[in-house]
Amino acid sequence: METKSILIDNVTIIGNELKKGSVLIENDKIIEINGKTGQRDAEIIINGEKKVLMPGLVNTHTHLSMSLLRGLADDLPLNTWLNDYIWPVEANLTGEYCYAGALLACVEMIKSGTTTFNDMYFFMDDVAKAVDEAGLRGTLCHGMIDLGDEEKRKAEFKETLRIIEKCHDTAEGRIKVTFGPHAPYTCSRELLEEVRKKADKMGLKIHIHVSETEFEVQQIIEAHGARPFEYLDEIGFLGNDVIAAHAVWLSDKEINIIKEKGVNLSHNPASNMKLASGISPVSKLIDAGVNTSLGTDGAASNNNLDMIKEMKIATLLQKVNTMDSTVLPADKVFEMATINGARALGLQDEIGTIKTGKKADLVLLDMKAPHLTPFRHPMSHLVYAANGNDVDTVICNGEILMQNRELKVLDEAEVIELAENAAEELLSRS
Amino acid sequence: METKSILIDNVTIIGNELKKGSVLIENDKIIEINGKTGQRDAEIIINGEKKVLMPGLVNTHTHLSMSLLRGLADDLPLNTWLNDYIWPVEANLTGEYCYAGALLACVEMIKSGTTTFNDMYFFMDDVAKAVDEAGLRGTLCHGMIDLGDEEKRKAEFKETLRIIEKCHDTAEGRIKVTFGPHAPYTCSRELLEEVRKKADKMGLKIHIHVSETEFEVQQIIEAHGARPFEYLDEIGFLGNDVIAAHAVWLSDKEINIIKEKGVNLSHNPASNMKLASGISPVSKLIDAGVNTSLGTDGAASNNNLDMIKEMKIATLLQKVNTMDSTVLPADKVFEMATINGARALGLQDEIGTIKTGKKADLVLLDMKAPHLTPFRHPMSHLVYAANGNDVDTVICNGEILMQNRELKVLDEAEVIELAENAAEELLSRS
Repeated sequence: METKSILIDNVTIIGNELKKGSVLIENDKIIEINGKTGQRDAEIIINGEKKVLMPGLVNTHTHLSMSLLRGLADDLPLNTWLNDYIWPVEANLTGEYCYAGALLACVEMIKSGTTTFNDMYFFMDDVAKAVDEAGLRGTLCHGMIDLGDEEKRKAEFKETLRIIEKCHDTAEGRIKVTFGPHAPYTCSRELLEEVRKKADKMGLKIHIHVSETEFEVQQIIEAHGARPFEYLDEIGFLGNDVIAAHAVWLSDKEINIIKEKGVNLSHNPASNMKLASGISPVSKLIDAGVNTSLGTDGAASNNNLDMIKEMKIATLLQKVNTMDSTVLPADKVFEMATINGARALGLQDEIGTIKTGKKADLVLLDMKAPHLTPFRHPMSHLVYAANGNDVDTVICNGEILMQNRELKVLDEAEVIELAENAAEELLSRS
Repeated sequence: METKSILIDNVTIIGNELKKGSVLIENDKIIEINGKTGQRDAEIIINGEKKVLMPGLVNTHTHLSMSLLRGLADDLPLNTWLNDYIWPVEANLTGEYCYAGALLACVEMIKSGTTTFNDMYFFMDDVAKAVDEAGLRGTLCHGMIDLGDEEKRKAEFKETLRIIEKCHDTAEGRIKVTFGPHAPYTCSRELLEEVRKKADKMGLKIHIHVSETEFEVQQIIEAHGARPFEYLDEIGFLGNDVIAAHAVWLSDKEINIIKEKGVNLSHNPASNMKLASGISPVSKLIDAGVNTSLGTDGAASNNNLDMIKEMKIATLLQKVNTMDSTVLPADKVFEMATINGARALGLQDEIGTIKTGKKADLVLLDMKAPHLTPFRHPMSHLVYAANGNDVDTVICNGEILMQNRELKVLDEAEVIELAENAAEELLSRS
């Protein structure tokens, strides 16, 4: 195989001790970081002047294909939203629609600086196809729901195993598959126990929703006489291979359990605010040493996948909720969106910081913009002033996916048209 | 004077009953809105296909020149932020720096769809010069602080009257001047009473900060035996010509006073969250019939002037704070950012909606973007999925200030360079 090299020259580097210099990529890896500028020893040279280089953002909770449902239903009670809008549409999903929605979401993520995500939904082999084509890194799972029905449970495992068999460790290793039990209130104890057993045996991770709403916490207490994380601990489900999304309603005892078992959390502030689910005690979790990462949730409840905007919302929400303007400072929320997310997915040695030997998952932001002037405080601007549209260039696994905001691997207009048509068809059926 | 005409053709119109059609501008006014497309009877024709036309956004609380301090100090307690960072820098301000900062802020506002704002700061004739050059519409005031000192009070009135004399109703009527007593805890009763008297006599509005923090509410209670809005009411200060920024800490009695006196509020959610000031009861205020508008506050505490992002933060914060996902729906927060702001400034017959006879203050958003696809729900996308960078074209007072994201009246690179140099000099002095 031919060696490919890219030099990002004269750039302000975030997430590395060296504040300014150049980064050399060979094939899929970062092979050198130094303080020199003006070297000219690579095939592709990217001028980083007045740009900031950061690790690709890691979005630890998504439902990519739901981007087709963006804006379909807002400002509604959760029940109405689910029963009258989301579920009727989801009943008509096909692999084709899920592919179109996932491809749209991939383009949106590229254009806003996300290179790795953790997705739960349906028709995941079609989603994998989109991710492969887009050049992104993703961890996928089929969302399993049995509601205590044994036949349904068997079908969910069959589909999960099919997806694992077909998609795990494909696309040059960019795609991994996990188990995806939807939530403790939609999955039986038998399902959860079987997931734990199989995950151990196969060495795969587990992605689950836990304690998004106070209502579901009450349901679990009524059904099992314990709070959700207590119940999951009792049945031996928890471990450091679990990524639990939301985790809004937590007792101190549960925070201890989460910490002791090394469970990874995905905080989704915009979605939790929009659906009025509540506020996760994120600064407390981080103080307790829990690995807390950041996610956007699906576009039906956010309504975008912009991790830069999500960082700002996350820190603002913690500050006002604790009435302490010093909590969750910019560098900490940036860690949530990068290395903590990488750690949640077991990829902390591969991605999440800019280091020699790590994968070349890198994002350049253009700082020549009035809302990012004066250019003195790059970390502050990144978290508090920027947004996804400021992303200029995106590299994943050493491939340039976008340069100067122009997609290199996909045709943006075609992807948008495909998604418009899919949404039109899907929504006319529902 | 030569007649200039602009036709915005085949566009999705927000804030007008006609959902799709064309808008004809002559000189500074909208002269026709109709359902036809493909007309060709104007000098300049703007194709509105897959674009959304909205009224220019109205930002009712800014400190434009503070954009030079963007990112200077984050994640700090309010006292440290003010005493160790903001005030020492402000002590070295000059008219030149304020001009450079205001010009930068104007460019940022144009690029994110704001055409009208309400500003309080210092060296306001230099700010007025920037606003005039930028082509925006603004209401300006000198921030008055006497802390009970009579000499200081005299000086503040002198400066205020100088600014009124020099700047009020200039720039083809785009610039107005108001009185700007900083806050009840920094201004003496004498100053506030004199402002009320002069404002009545001169027919000018009043811009003031009220009840941003719980601490200042306690100060007022200790000093005057009443909560801030009660105290202001007792001394006859309140009226429908008052725009009060923040209004975070309000008793039910104060909400009644605000409603009865017709006081206009400017809600600043991002700043209130970032400084951990608290959460204004906006949905309650709107239910009570209080005219509540939206503001970003200065870039030192936000850290941008993006009203589109501010709309999302405003509605998300109300939903989670009330634990009701139906409060402050997209169209209501959009009203806060447009017509309610216009009403606060007494400009409701001129701007804030798209209507024949109103000023041509109009903004086009480009919806050909993955995060705004599918293009089915323009109001939802505008509030929940878009951001300032999606703004494509901006018209203020009939002048095109930006088209296809390219500034028409100012040189963006020059403005950025001027601001970079000013910030460099100002901060090196402090």
